Amino acid sequence: MSERVLSVGEAHALIAAALTASDTSIDNADAVARALVGAELVGQGGHGLRRVPAYAAQARAGKVKGHAAARAERVRPGVVSIDAAFGFAYPALELAADQLTEMTPEQGIAIAGIHRSHHAGVAGLAVEALAARGLVALMFANAPAAMAPWGGRRPLFGTDPIAFACPTKGGDPIIVDVSLSKVARGKIMAANQRQEPIPEGWALDAEGRATTDPRAALAGTMIPLGDAKGTALALMVELLCAGLTGANFGYEQTSFFDADGDPPGTGQAIIAIDPGVFEGHALARFAEMADQIAGSEGARVPGHRRIALRERLTRDGIPVEQALIDEIGVIGAA
Amino acid sequence: MSERVLSVGEAHALIAAALTASDTSIDNADAVARALVGAELVGQGGHGLRRVPAYAAQARAGKVKGHAAARAERVRPGVVSIDAAFGFAYPALELAADQLTEMTPEQGIAIAGIHRSHHAGVAGLAVEALAARGLVALMFANAPAAMAPWGGRRPLFGTDPIAFACPTKGGDPIIVDVSLSKVARGKIMAANQRQEPIPEGWALDAEGRATTDPRAALAGTMIPLGDAKGTALALMVELLCAGLTGANFGYEQTSFFDADGDPPGTGQAIIAIDPGVFEGHALARFAEMADQIAGSEGARVPGHRRIALRERLTRDGIPVEQALIDEIGVIGAA
Repeated sequence: MSERVLSVGEAHALIAAALTASDTSIDNADAVARALVGAELVGQGGHGLRRVPAYAAQARAGKVKGHAAARAERVRPGVVSIDAAFGFAYPALELAADQLTEMTPEQGIAIAGIHRSHHAGVAGLAVEALAARGLVALMFANAPAAMAPWGGRRPLFGTDPIAFACPTKGGDPIIVDVSLSKVARGKIMAANQRQEPIPEGWALDAEGRATTDPRAALAGTMIPLGDAKGTALALMVELLCAGLTGANFGYEQTSFFDADGDPPGTGQAIIAIDPGVFEGHALARFAEMADQIAGSEGARVPGHRRIALRERLTRDGIPVEQALIDEIGVIGAA
Repeated sequence: MSERVLSVGEAHALIAAALTASDTSIDNADAVARALVGAELVGQGGHGLRRVPAYAAQARAGKVKGHAAARAERVRPGVVSIDAAFGFAYPALELAADQLTEMTPEQGIAIAGIHRSHHAGVAGLAVEALAARGLVALMFANAPAAMAPWGGRRPLFGTDPIAFACPTKGGDPIIVDVSLSKVARGKIMAANQRQEPIPEGWALDAEGRATTDPRAALAGTMIPLGDAKGTALALMVELLCAGLTGANFGYEQTSFFDADGDPPGTGQAIIAIDPGVFEGHALARFAEMADQIAGSEGARVPGHRRIALRERLTRDGIPVEQALIDEIGVIGAA
């Protein structure tokens, strides 16, 4: 398959042009472009440029409001409620990061709850942005239902991510980013776009049978990590990021992948904590743990591989399939 | 194996007598007894009466300080730091619940970080106590290292639990309580005490080989749920409940099961959120999700089985092995 290497600036411009040509404001298009390029740079292509055609189609159809302005309301000293106004999630996530950065040093802990939102992309990037500002961050996000409660067959929960990041003294942040399906749904989406089979064990078809066909998998359910435990954690995520914040549950959401129906109305909850609040020299302690892992033969510190990859791709460029570049280019030229 | 059925009051008195005979204050012994009986009532015998002989031996040896008084300091509007003073965890957890109940309605969100603590028992009970007071609660706790970072062999993380509870409108709370090993370490401890083999897939021996011998498993490492993802979540828990709060990491802790060495110095972090802070009628929404799960054939709402079991055992009594009752009785008669 033919590929081209795009610089960060080229990739950003390609995305922004496609979205501004699709009824989206420049500010919102820039926020989306930052997030999708950010996903490509950490090797998460399933949340990267590949999303642009569906995003653009949804913006044109009004399923995502390209001109929406996310609005923050400080409802308690430690709580900000953010209405993403059925726009893209990324401007709301950036607003949440700004608000939490302001609130947390004084309160010690703060939470941003986002409702009427959209696809949150790589959750690890949103928490890393807070770690870069010196905060410990924990994020929960949901997505259209793809996993059934354990023992059941009807999907109620998305392949919802839990993400965590913290700064470390003198080193890179630690970033945990775990979707609660055995694999991220974006990987199946990517396989489907490439028309390649998926490994057995990733998903079940609509009748609950094992499948290696990505199309059948997308119509079926994802297998949770750790079986019953994984669906229990997904339930927790749904309750925190949607039940609490006023967003839709996974089973109430329309698809991220087509322009049909109402806006999905997803939710995100982000908790930020000032690592200076307790007595224990937290940043030094975080660094000690990172050192212990780095010193374990065969083990890796979560987040460090993606940080290294980002450095390399920022320098060398992002390889993207030519067909995808062409597809996005046509949208932008419209 | 011969069993006897104990009433809640009998079980409580049996535990409290053993601890007060083992250099522990009445108040602390009562808090421990409430927690261990609470564990038995939800079918978590691995965190129940079976722990008393080791607790008592540790109290006599000073590895846990039976007369410690947990102390709370409000270090920020949303943060309370709790020093468990190397005593039992349970009095500190009760203090945390009281503090969070006071702080959360005003702040919207609050966190209690506990350091110099001990075995936290059933994490689901601590969050359920907050749900009973109308709060959403999220808890992270650590334990002596039993799981290696993915790809490594040296255990760094405990089989650390993540627990969550929320009240629901007109119904029972939802309670998620997930330890990040494939199974709880207490189950292997219980099998070891009963001298029964464990299923393959639960643990590895010290050389990293699969084992069904509970003794070899206790000397080896636990298999995480979801492989790499499970150890990433365990790392997150360690960073939140220990790195942040000033507690020891799993790899710095002594055993919960013998009286040797320094106090383990574990940590717990509990986040409480007022469900009334956002606009979305959270308690009704939590109930809707519970109804969706309850209406899915074959699925169960997490927490509901343990609530039903507690009702039954509170009424009918708790079956306990006679040998264990005798062992605890002898300690109390000393």
